Amino acid sequence: MKKKYSFITTLLLSATLSQAQTADSVVVKKLYDATLSHGQSYEWLRQLTTQIGGRLAGSANAAKAVQWGKNVLEQAGADRVFLQDVMVPHWERGAKEEAYIVVGKQKITVPLLALGGSIATPKKGIQAEVIEVQNFQELRALGKEKCEGKIIFFNRPMDATKINTFEAYGGAGDQRRSGANEASKVGAIGVIIRSLSNTLNDYPHTGSMQYATGVPLIPAGAISTNAAELLSKTLKENPKTQFFFKQNCETLDDAPSHNVVAEIKGSEKPDEYIVVGGHLDSWDVAQGAHDDGTGIAQSMEVLRLFKELGIRPKRTIRIVLFMNEENGNRGGIKYAELAKQNNEKHIFALESDSGGFTPKGFGIQGAAASVFEKIQGYKSLFAPYGLHEIERGGGGVDIGPLGPQGTVLIGFKPDSQRYFEYHHASNDKFDTVNQRELELGAASIASLVYLLDKYGL
Amino acid sequence: MKKKYSFITTLLLSATLSQAQTADSVVVKKLYDATLSHGQSYEWLRQLTTQIGGRLAGSANAAKAVQWGKNVLEQAGADRVFLQDVMVPHWERGAKEEAYIVVGKQKITVPLLALGGSIATPKKGIQAEVIEVQNFQELRALGKEKCEGKIIFFNRPMDATKINTFEAYGGAGDQRRSGANEASKVGAIGVIIRSLSNTLNDYPHTGSMQYATGVPLIPAGAISTNAAELLSKTLKENPKTQFFFKQNCETLDDAPSHNVVAEIKGSEKPDEYIVVGGHLDSWDVAQGAHDDGTGIAQSMEVLRLFKELGIRPKRTIRIVLFMNEENGNRGGIKYAELAKQNNEKHIFALESDSGGFTPKGFGIQGAAASVFEKIQGYKSLFAPYGLHEIERGGGGVDIGPLGPQGTVLIGFKPDSQRYFEYHHASNDKFDTVNQRELELGAASIASLVYLLDKYGL
Repeated sequence: MKKKYSFITTLLLSATLSQAQTADSVVVKKLYDATLSHGQSYEWLRQLTTQIGGRLAGSANAAKAVQWGKNVLEQAGADRVFLQDVMVPHWERGAKEEAYIVVGKQKITVPLLALGGSIATPKKGIQAEVIEVQNFQELRALGKEKCEGKIIFFNRPMDATKINTFEAYGGAGDQRRSGANEASKVGAIGVIIRSLSNTLNDYPHTGSMQYATGVPLIPAGAISTNAAELLSKTLKENPKTQFFFKQNCETLDDAPSHNVVAEIKGSEKPDEYIVVGGHLDSWDVAQGAHDDGTGIAQSMEVLRLFKELGIRPKRTIRIVLFMNEENGNRGGIKYAELAKQNNEKHIFALESDSGGFTPKGFGIQGAAASVFEKIQGYKSLFAPYGLHEIERGGGGVDIGPLGPQGTVLIGFKPDSQRYFEYHHASNDKFDTVNQRELELGAASIASLVYLLDKYGL
Repeated sequence: MKKKYSFITTLLLSATLSQAQTADSVVVKKLYDATLSHGQSYEWLRQLTTQIGGRLAGSANAAKAVQWGKNVLEQAGADRVFLQDVMVPHWERGAKEEAYIVVGKQKITVPLLALGGSIATPKKGIQAEVIEVQNFQELRALGKEKCEGKIIFFNRPMDATKINTFEAYGGAGDQRRSGANEASKVGAIGVIIRSLSNTLNDYPHTGSMQYATGVPLIPAGAISTNAAELLSKTLKENPKTQFFFKQNCETLDDAPSHNVVAEIKGSEKPDEYIVVGGHLDSWDVAQGAHDDGTGIAQSMEVLRLFKELGIRPKRTIRIVLFMNEENGNRGGIKYAELAKQNNEKHIFALESDSGGFTPKGFGIQGAAASVFEKIQGYKSLFAPYGLHEIERGGGGVDIGPLGPQGTVLIGFKPDSQRYFEYHHASNDKFDTVNQRELELGAASIASLVYLLDKYGL
C-alpha cells in the first residue's frame, strides 16, 4: 500500500509540478511578449544616453541622470521612489588631452585618454623615451637602470582566444589599475597603456586606476589599440622613439550624489528584499550605452512589466540605480551599509552590467548548493528564449557589498563578444545597442525575478 | 564472469570514448584559437564587401567576386579550385527609384527600392489612391470593387514576439513574394510593401518576388518601415492619400556565371563529399556583408584552418561559393545536378547564410534519428564555445537541391536578433560585422566538419 500511495503521490506531485511549470511558462512568455512588442527600455535608454550623455559621478550630468531616473520610475508606477545620499569621488578630465609619438623631427598624433583618477601631467606635458613591456615581471626585471626618467608603455593585449571576453579583460586589467604604481617604483615619469579592447581601432578606452601609498604619483593615460600597434612597431624600428602626452585632469573634493531606489511593495513578505539594478554613472567621454545605460533601462523595465502584467510580488522588489560604479563604488557600498543599518533582509540582488547584448544566462554567487540547483531547475523555462547558461560566478560591482550579508548575488550574462569594442570609450553610444537584444535581456531578468520571488531561495 | 567482462569492456570503452572526446576537444580548441588569434575571414570579408561591394547575379561585380573567390581559395592552399558554369537571371534596377506620399498638394518623399524581379513602372511613374491591407485574406475580401486602379500597400509587420527572427520573417514573407500577384488579381496597378525588417528606420529592404502566370504584371517596391508607419498614419487621417512611385528596373537575358568550388582531397574516402558553403551573390544595393559575405568568408576559413593545422580529412571537402541564391538559386540547382550526373556521393552539406553573428548552434535536416543523435552527442564539445542548440530544421537555399540525393543538410545557426536590421538593405555593410562573432562562427563550422568527417554520419 505504501508503495502504491507513494506512486500516486509522485504522480500527483509531478502533475502539480508540471502544471506549475506550464503556468510559469505562460507568465514568462507574457513578460517576453510585452517587452518585445511595446517595452520601454529602448526609449529610456535613448533618453539617458542621447539627452543626458556621459555622466561621471560628481558631474552635473550625473545629477541630471538621478533626477531623470527618479521621474521615470515614479511615472512607471513604483509604490515609492527615494534617493539615498552618498558622497562620491569627483574627478574631472579637464581640457582635451594631447599625445604624439616623436621619431626624430616627426610627430605622429595619437588618440589618448587620461585614466580615471590619474593626476595631470605638468602643464606643458611630458616627453621621454619609451620602454615597452608586457607585464610587471618584465618591468621589474628591467629595473631602475633601464626605466628611470622614461615613459612605460604597457602593451599586453587582451587574450583573443578567451571565449568570454570578460576573462580576457580580467587578464589584462592590472596594466590599467596598477601600471602607474609599478612604473613609479622603477623611476618612470609617466605611463601609457594599450587600451583594454579586443578591437583594433582608433578609440582610446579609459577606466579607473588607483595610486598606491608610498610611491610617487605619475600620470597615466590609455592610447587606442591602433596607436599601441603603431608605437610598438615604431619602437622596434627606432628604440630611441619618444612619446609626448599632456593631460589636465584633477581630483576635486568629494561631491554629494545619490542612488535612486524604486519599490514595488511585497504582498506577503514586504520585509524581504530583492534588488534589481545597474549603475547610473558612466565615464565622461561616452554616452554610457552598454556601460551601463542598458542595465539601467532593463532594471526599470522590470518594474514596468510587473505593473503592466499586474504581477504582485510576494517580496519587496527594489529597482536600484547605483551611483559611482566606475570610480569608487560608493553607491554600492552605501546601499549595503543602509541595508544592514535598517535590518533589511536581502534575499538576492541581481545586476545587469555586462552590456545590452543577447542574453546567454545568469551567473550565481553565494548560493548554497540546494539554492543553486533550484535556480538551475528553471533552465527549461529559459531555453525557448536562448538562455542556456546558469552557472556559478557572476554578481556585480554594485551589489557586491551585499554579499557579506548573506545575499545571493546574480549577474545577468549577455553575449560578451562586442562589449570591449565599446567599453569606456567614446563609441559606447546608443546606436550600438540593438533594441531586440536589449529587450530580450529585460524580459530575461524580469522572468528570473518573477520565479525567484514566487518560489523563494 | 560474463558480467565482469562486460563491466571491464564498458570501462575500457568509456575510457576510449573519453580519450577520443579529449583528443577532439584539443583539436576543436586549436580551431577556435587559430581563428580568433590570426584568422583570415574578417580580412576576406573586408575585401569582398568593400573592394567589390554589391554583386547581384549577372552583374559585373558578381563576375569580379567569382574571380576573387577563385584566387583566394587557390592562395589558401586548396588542392584544386574550379568553376562550374551556370546561367543566371539578369535583373537590373536601373536609375534611382523615386517615391512619395501625396496628401492634397503636399508630397512627402519616402525611400523605396524596387523588389528584385519586378517590372518597371511606366516612365513617368504611377500615382493612385492607396489601399492598406495586412494580408491576402483582407485583400480578397475587399475585392475588385475597392482595389481596382489602386496601389495596394501590404503593411503586416514581422512579429516582434518571435524569438527566432527567421520565423517572423517567414510569417511576413508572402507579402513580398506574392503580393503583386494577389494585388493584380483584384485589379490593382501597383504594390508597395512594408520592408521585411523588425527595426524602425529609413532603409528600404529589397528581395525577390515572382510573377505568377495568367495575371497582369504590376510593379512592386518596398518602402522603409518608418515610411510604412508614416503612410499608415497618413491614410488613417486622410483615406484619399495617394502614393507615387517610379522604378526603372528590367529583366535582361540570362547571363553566364559560375559557382566557385575548392577541394581538399579526402585521404581515405576521396569519393565521398562534404560541402561547406554560402552564396557569393548579394543584392545590388548592399555590400552583402551579413548576406552572405560572412558565410563566404567563414567557408573559406574552414579550408585555411584545415591547411594550417594539417588536418587531412578522410573525405573530400568542398568549399562552394554558390551563385544566385538571391533571385533564382541557379547555382545551388546546378551544383546538385552535376553531383548527380557525376555520381558524387555527398554525405552532408553545410551552409552559412544567416549572418555573421555569435553562433548558437546548427539545424539538421534529413538525418535519420541515429545520425541526429550522433550529432547531438557533440554538444558537450561545443558548450565551452557557447553553442547549445543542435536541433532539427536548418539547411539552406543553396544546398537544398542536394536533399533529394539523400544528403544531410546542415544550417549554421548564429544569433538572429540583428539579421533583419540589415538584410537586403543598403546598411548591410562590413562595419556591422563584429570580427570575433564572425570568427567564432568560422571555428564552429570547422569543428563540426572536422567531427563529422572523422566519425562519419
